[in-house]
Amino acid sequence: MATKKMILDLDTGIDDSLAIAYALAAPDVDLIGIIGSYGNVYVKEGGINSLKILELLGAPDVPVYLGESHSLTSDHFDRMQVSARIHGENGIGQVELPEPKRQLETTSGVDFLIDSVKKYGKDLTLVPTGPMTNLAKALEKAPEIATEIGNVTFMGGALTVEGNVNAYAEANINQDAEAANAVFTSPMQLTMVGLDVTLRTLLTRKETSQWRELNTKAGTAFADIVDYYIEAYEETNPQVPGCALHDPLAVGVALDPSFITTLGLNMFVSTDKETYGRTIGDQARLDQPETNVNVGINVDADRYLATFMKYLTGLFAKN
Amino acid sequence: MATKKMILDLDTGIDDSLAIAYALAAPDVDLIGIIGSYGNVYVKEGGINSLKILELLGAPDVPVYLGESHSLTSDHFDRMQVSARIHGENGIGQVELPEPKRQLETTSGVDFLIDSVKKYGKDLTLVPTGPMTNLAKALEKAPEIATEIGNVTFMGGALTVEGNVNAYAEANINQDAEAANAVFTSPMQLTMVGLDVTLRTLLTRKETSQWRELNTKAGTAFADIVDYYIEAYEETNPQVPGCALHDPLAVGVALDPSFITTLGLNMFVSTDKETYGRTIGDQARLDQPETNVNVGINVDADRYLATFMKYLTGLFAKN
Repeated sequence: MATKKMILDLDTGIDDSLAIAYALAAPDVDLIGIIGSYGNVYVKEGGINSLKILELLGAPDVPVYLGESHSLTSDHFDRMQVSARIHGENGIGQVELPEPKRQLETTSGVDFLIDSVKKYGKDLTLVPTGPMTNLAKALEKAPEIATEIGNVTFMGGALTVEGNVNAYAEANINQDAEAANAVFTSPMQLTMVGLDVTLRTLLTRKETSQWRELNTKAGTAFADIVDYYIEAYEETNPQVPGCALHDPLAVGVALDPSFITTLGLNMFVSTDKETYGRTIGDQARLDQPETNVNVGINVDADRYLATFMKYLTGLFAKN
Repeated sequence: MATKKMILDLDTGIDDSLAIAYALAAPDVDLIGIIGSYGNVYVKEGGINSLKILELLGAPDVPVYLGESHSLTSDHFDRMQVSARIHGENGIGQVELPEPKRQLETTSGVDFLIDSVKKYGKDLTLVPTGPMTNLAKALEKAPEIATEIGNVTFMGGALTVEGNVNAYAEANINQDAEAANAVFTSPMQLTMVGLDVTLRTLLTRKETSQWRELNTKAGTAFADIVDYYIEAYEETNPQVPGCALHDPLAVGVALDPSFITTLGLNMFVSTDKETYGRTIGDQARLDQPETNVNVGINVDADRYLATFMKYLTGLFAKN
């Protein structure tokens, strides 16, 4: 199986941790690095969490770079209260993992991304699962990467369902709608794994108990981490029977697009005050036959979940 | 070709007039009646316009019934200024047509709809292209018709693009979101022909000039009526190259669903003040395999337009 060079751009985060696990477990991925973003946590905290998860999962050699620490239009980032409630104060469900042995890289995440596109071109897959600030910065610095990169599949946005910040905005996009709009309206081909599909892709305690029964460090830690997330979902989204696999679904779709059905649409991201962060079709470009966003509008959740469990349970059994 | 019994529920209106023409011209339709609604015009004015268009098109025997004159939650209806601008003060582009010989029916449109479902059941197709007040009233009075009727294909709503009243709401739904929500959350199977597809289905002066060249009463009148509409579009939607075939597309899709590609989705209509009239997926019903709304998300506009022109030009040539 040909492996794909992959970069994850994460604000780690519980479902970001599952995205790391999916990428490490998938047989066709060479995870060349992780870029840290702000969002669920502060950027440095997220970077450290990524290192901890990598070491827990037996992948201490994957480098972690820090990206931007706040949105394009602000000078700092304040973590939302609800993020601590959903992901835990430490971002990983209050589970204590050993301090990582590896240090964070000193190269900026934005430069690492640009350099990687130059090096791998169409062989490179990028999966952003946080704000789009790093990607927008990279496009600003090196606009040509828009068409040089192979695959950009992101978790974010909501088209056919309401947002999770308010009726219009999904949390990742809402962190930096200006950055997201710069990416959405660039020539870059995007696959959008938004709430439209992630809210249909649920994990329950039935699955986490399978990890717990492995009696391994990783199995126990991930069972604890994800049970924290499920509990938060039970409080905040009582209508959803489980927790949504937001970020790991984006990794799965990046590797196997057939998990979702898509609508090709030219979209923009609203930066108006009233509808800030809404991801929606652009009427002025509706008649253009070429579209740059493939929006996931349905998902084969059963097949994805079977793959997810095969991959993650296999990885946790060995760590 | 087996003909289908069809009822149109219209607020006639320029594109409503095109919907009447399409239904009369299509070889597989038996137009058994028109129900008048408020919206583009007041209910009685719309009913008279329907009679005038029917007589212009050589179909003086189709009965026209009046439905509700205002929304479920109001005691009267005020026509919006923009409606006169788009459809003309008289609703049909300021074109003067002879007073109709036939009178409006005295039976209520709501009762006519219920009686027709009882009579024709699955053989009946309903195409509402205005507010959903009449349909909601009929469902309130006879809930069982939700599953007895054959086909309900409506023009209204917007899922993947912004609304035309504001960023969320499409005009028909916005007239009576409570009525629309009652219909959307009923067991009735619906096909939604919203701005998602109608804004991709455009008519230009190139087409209306073909009607004008026919040198018939109907050809000249419809060229004048639709040119008025195109001119209004040029002012209000300068980014759209032509006028949208909102209402006649719904009739076309009711007869040949393959004109559009659809997403099956359980939806609701927001009645919250902030998002009043937004048509959007219901998170709480995302995991239900059965869906009651087939939302048009793309359209074969070329094939539809070819059919539209074949039908309408043929009809106008004879009248």
